[in-house]
Parts: sequence; C-alpha cells; structure tokens
Amino acid sequence: MKHSISSTLAVCIALSYSNVALAKVTTASVTTPRTPVVSTNITEADVLAAQQAWGRALVQIATDFEQGGHAKAKATAEAVLDAAYGYNMGAVLFKPTLTTAPQTFRTTREGALAYFVGGNPAFPNDSGFALKGWRAVNITNAGIHLHGNSALSMGNVSITDKSGKTTTVDKTWGYARDDQGNLRIVLHHSSLPYQP
Amino acid sequence: MKHSISSTLAVCIALSYSNVALAKVTTASVTTPRTPVVSTNITEADVLAAQQAWGRALVQIATDFEQGGHAKAKATAEAVLDAAYGYNMGAVLFKPTLTTAPQTFRTTREGALAYFVGGNPAFPNDSGFALKGWRAVNITNAGIHLHGNSALSMGNVSITDKSGKTTTVDKTWGYARDDQGNLRIVLHHSSLPYQP
Amino acid sequence: MKHSISSTLAVCIALSYSNVALAKVTTASVTTPRTPVVSTNITEADVLAAQQAWGRALVQIATDFEQGGHAKAKATAEAVLDAAYGYNMGAVLFKPTLTTAPQTFRTTREGALAYFVGGNPAFPNDSGFALKGWRAVNITNAGIHLHGNSALSMGNVSITDKSGKTTTVDKTWGYARDDQGNLRIVLHHSSLPYQP
Amino acid sequence: MKHSISSTLAVCIALSYSNVALAKVTTASVTTPRTPVVSTNITEADVLAAQQAWGRALVQIATDFEQGGHAKAKATAEAVLDAAYGYNMGAVLFKPTLTTAPQTFRTTREGALAYFVGGNPAFPNDSGFALKGWRAVNITNAGIHLHGNSALSMGNVSITDKSGKTTTVDKTWGYARDDQGNLRIVLHHSSLPYQP
Repeated sequence: MKHSISSTLAVCIALSYSNVALAKVTTASVTTPRTPVVSTNITEADVLAAQQAWGRALVQIATDFEQGGHAKAKATAEAVLDAAYGYNMGAVLFKPTLTTAPQTFRTTREGALAYFVGGNPAFPNDSGFALKGWRAVNITNAGIHLHGNSALSMGNVSITDKSGKTTTVDKTWGYARDDQGNLRIVLHHSSLPYQP
Repeated sequence: MKHSISSTLAVCIALSYSNVALAKVTTASVTTPRTPVVSTNITEADVLAAQQAWGRALVQIATDFEQGGHAKAKATAEAVLDAAYGYNMGAVLFKPTLTTAPQTFRTTREGALAYFVGGNPAFPNDSGFALKGWRAVNITNAGIHLHGNSALSMGNVSITDKSGKTTTVDKTWGYARDDQGNLRIVLHHSSLPYQP
Repeated sequence: MKHSISSTLAVCIALSYSNVALAKVTTASVTTPRTPVVSTNITEADVLAAQQAWGRALVQIATDFEQGGHAKAKATAEAVLDAAYGYNMGAVLFKPTLTTAPQTFRTTREGALAYFVGGNPAFPNDSGFALKGWRAVNITNAGIHLHGNSALSMGNVSITDKSGKTTTVDKTWGYARDDQGNLRIVLHHSSLPYQP
Repeated sequence: MKHSISSTLAVCIALSYSNVALAKVTTASVTTPRTPVVSTNITEADVLAAQQAWGRALVQIATDFEQGGHAKAKATAEAVLDAAYGYNMGAVLFKPTLTTAPQTFRTTREGALAYFVGGNPAFPNDSGFALKGWRAVNITNAGIHLHGNSALSMGNVSITDKSGKTTTVDKTWGYARDDQGNLRIVLHHSSLPYQP
C-alpha cells in the first residue's frame, strides 16, 4: 500500500522559512503490509452505539417491570448499571433529571439504582424513573467530542411512554472505554428544559 | 440518519445475568443530523503521513546540503525539528542511530540538530547524519498503537543514498498531536540491527 | 533517588500462579537523577483553578458592565470566551442555564457571547446572563474525573448578586488542555434544580 | 478548602486585551469538601514502579531457572508476560535486544516468550535471554512522557549477571494502564549501544 506524500510538514516549513525552497523529492514511501493496529480510541460510532444501548435499556427496564414486577425490573437495572455505567471505575458523575438536594448527585451505584427503580428508603424521593412505562427513546445530538478513550455528547433525548406522551430533556453524557472495549457512562447530566 | 441497535450492552447483560430475558425492543433510536464532532484522536493515516513527512525531510536536508551547502541544510534541519518534533513541548525522547554515551540521548533541540547536521563543538562525535547523500526512505511498520492524542509505531526504516547503498534500522516513533492538529515526534529510538 | 520495589507485579503473579514461589530478590533498582518529565495530564488543581477563573470572569463581566457599559462588558466577555472556552478547537458543547429550544445549545462562540451579554438579534431571547449584577461565585464539586488531557467536573455553582440574592445551579464542565498548558472549557451543562 | 485565585485566565486576557482593566474581584471561590476524584492518568511514580517490576521479574526468571529448571523459568516468564505486558490488548511493539530479521519484532506473546526462555523451534535463534544468570538491574531514565493513560520512558538499563559482568542497553518502554489500574508494557525497544 502506497500513501501519498503528506503536505503538512511542507506547509509548516514554508510558513516559517519562506526562504527555504522545497526540492522535488518523491522517493519517501511507507510500506505497511498487514500492520497490526491497536487503538484505544473511541469513535463516533461507539458513542452512537452506547446511546442506543442506553435507550434500549430504559425501555427494557420499563417493560420488565410490567411483565415481571419490581424484582425483575431491579435485576435488569442492576445489570444495566453494571454493564453500561462506570461505577466499577469509581464515582460516576450522575445528575438525573428529577432529583433534588441533598440527593441531587448520584455518584454511587446505590444512588443510581434507587433513581431508576426506587424502593430504597435511603432515597425517599425516588419513585423509580425507569418504571414509568417507557416505550421509545429518541436521541438527537447537538455535538460530540472524542478525546482518546474518553468522549462527550450533548443533545436532546425524547422518551415516549405507552400512552404516547413524550418528554424531552437536555442530556450530557461522558464516556470512557474499559479494557473489554465497551464504552461506559462516567458522566450523565440530565435536565428538564428551562421554562421562562 | 438511523443507526442499528447496538448488541454490546445486550451481550454483557446476557453474560452476567443469564436469567434476564431480553424483550424485543426496537424503538430506541439515535438521530444525529449534521452533528458537529470534535476529535483530538490520532488515526493510522495521521501516523503514516507523519512517517512520510519524516522520510521526505531527511532526503530534503541531504539534497539541500548538496545544492546549498551546510548553511542551507542546517536551516532546513531547524525547520524540520521545529515543525515535526516536539521540542517545543519539552524534552523529546530521542535516541539516534549512531550516538554514543554520554551523548546517546538527545532530549534537547540543540542535540538533535547536532546529530542531523553536525558542526557543533559541543557534540564532537556528530558528523551530520542527514548530510550523507540520502535519496530514498522506505518505512515498513511492524505495528501501530493509537492512544488518543498520542500514538506509537515500530518497524524498519530503510534509507538509500545516491550510490544506491541501503541501510536498514529498527525504528520506534512516539507521536503527540499539537493544537493545530499536526503530529509531532516526541519519541524516536533508532538502532542498527543486532549482529550476532 | 531510590524507589522501593513495586509489589503490583508480584501480587498479580501470585494470584495467577500460586505455585510460583517468589524468590527474595532485592537488586532491581531505578536511578532517576534529574529525569525530565513531560506531562500533558490535567490535575485536580488544574480543574479547581479553571473553575476559579470561570467564577472570577463572571463577576468581572458584571462589574465591567456597571462601570463601563455594554461595550466594555462585551469586550471582557469576548476575552473570556477566547481564553477560557474551546471554541478555537471546534464546537463547544454548551447548554446554558436559561436557554430554550431551538437555541438551547450554544455550540458556536457567537451563541455563547449572546447568552452572556445579549444584544444579538439572532438570539432574541438572550438578555445577557452575565450582566445581572453578580458579585460572588461559590463552587462545590460532587466529583471530578481526570482522563489525560481532558477532565470532567460536576457539582453545584452558587452565584450571588449585589442585592445578596443567591442562585444555585447544577453544573457540569468538561475541560481540555491546549498546547500552552491552559485548560479550556469544551463542555458546559448548567441547569436549575428540579422543582417537584 | 479554599483555593487561591488562578492567574492563568487573567494573564491570557491581559495579553490579548491590554485595554481591559481587571477589577479587584476576590469573591470567586471553590469549595471541594471530600470531592471524589477518579483519575485514569499515569504518574511518574507508576512508571518507576513498572520499571522496578520489570527488573525484578528478569532476575526472578533467571533465579527460577537455576533453582527449578526450564519448566519453572518458563512458568514464571509466562506469568510475567501475562501480568506486565499488554499482549491481552493486542500486538505489543517489542524489539528485543538480540533478535534478528525476519524475527526482529515480537508482536505476539509466543514470540516474546521464546525470546525470554527459548526452547521454541519456531524461533530457532532464541536461546533464552532471561536465563543468563541475571542478578541485578539498574535503570537510569533520560526522560519520561506522561500522556493520560499511556506513558513513555527512555534511558539506559544495566543488567549484571552472577559473574559480576554488566551489560548496558538503550531502552524505550511504552506503557498503558489497564482497568485494574496496573501499567502494562505495550512497547519495548531495546538495543545495544552503537559501536563506531
């Protein structure tokens, strides 16, 4: 495989040293037969897949609640937290949509689980956000940032329940890649739109 | 743009919670119309382009020496160091092919320049590696690692002079991306093949 | 400088290969006299300093508005955006506290400037958030994540105006380091606390 | 905990906007009581500990060979490769000191194991580098680079055998952090000093 000559360096030199004429040299080449490439970088596709998985998981928990009761919904929520969030890596920066002080931020797995499925006396205001009959999730990104094995997205998430009512929130997610190559959510800030 | 449902999360859950049946939910979607994506990640193409630029620069210095003398070669070498190496970011980890203790490592720009074009009494053993009539550079990578805005490559570099003689070295480069998006060499370890 | 023997590797080996007895070997040493260290990593102190700078800048814009009028406040706001935000790096993921659809997200410098100082007909709902007489900013972090040259923080920001009234918001910031070593805000999600 | 006001932003603004006078504002503060901080960054201490572990492992393999024969040395070498190298993450960029073409680069675990303990007909020139009676390892770094969860070091490594003979090589290591927080060697370039 032959690659064309990069013009990056040439441009930089030309800018800095306008008196340095560049000779016509076309004999530098890079041969890369079957080069193994190891990448820990997160791609846009990785971010979109993680968002899809989050939406799917929310609908799953709601459906499991209706079909299997609270125990089943809780088991699914725990599986989701363990697979898709980074609580195994330490404190997750999680500000759910409907929490209030002094329990606004759910940096622990216990606090996140309470938010999603309720039933924890230590979090008395949590009634179980994921149990509210969700049927569809639509995500529209305003922008995505990719920084090596961490990434960020911001945008709107619209969730529709079984009655057809849609709620839209402003949503920020931060992701980090684990050793198995899966993205984990390490930051989640969700808020209702400002009402003037 | 619609993206297909990710199976990553589902697989993880299935592995950990085999008793959790996954319902058929196909209603999660991600809509990303014209999403701005900001990425600081280095790609394989970036690495290959930086390698090309390095090879081209070596031939350039040699050619400039023959056509314009030492002053011209030195000016080009300085331009190359300033554009393609990361001495502006601090110490570069540079072990050139032909240096010996106690001047084996050239962590400063001055030491690197002395290696490439010689003529510095502080580096008396340097005769100017880049001045030796180089005409062609061929790079064969054994592997590439991509870690966000840093990257690594290892392989062979073969350089051919105007008499047609080719020298092959074992070469490792480390790269980091600067704010302008250009890769800079922050590590360079070059060695002649082991002779049993 | 002598460093004590690491037990990390020994532990890993012991766990995996319990039948491999570790001999008493104490002769491995690392000598690192005056080693140059180049780090692009963001520290907790860097994050706290960037937060301080943000708070200070908000008070500065408000004070400049009162002392020098809109032109002076706008000039300061532009200086703040250019120095402390990453619009030079591409789209910033900015969801200000008081914006509404379809102008909720301010991924451009123009949109951010309109939010802070108003006066832009293209953003008719912006009255200039930074002009509201702010005198003090207090930041309480719920958690901080450090991922190389990007970082995240989440917590509460309380801002007090000249009448003594304090407003508290839920705040997420994402940071990236530029070549000059300064942190820039590349993500900013601010929201009023949920009112049940 | 109170932190002093950052001067970073002020300086940047002053440089760019010399006509913008900075008011005396001392009311921005950051309160960070018991903030959880999650960091994936590699520190200088992490690098030094990984180097120590490598030196200790080399002596361990040599000692195990003498005390327990080839089988024991091989078991230890396998444990070292699995714990300290990144072959589980993909191709490791490994150029050992004494290998020759076409087997110069050992991007696979099998090739690395053959180099350390020999006995693999697929690598006929390998006699087992780690079996040569090593007793002490001393590492002197020329420089270290820290880039988030990857890092680089370059310098000299001197190894002494049981007869007291010391060999010094030029050594480059690249590291990446795994999920358990341990550094793994993902690049290793070792070469004998150039002999003019």
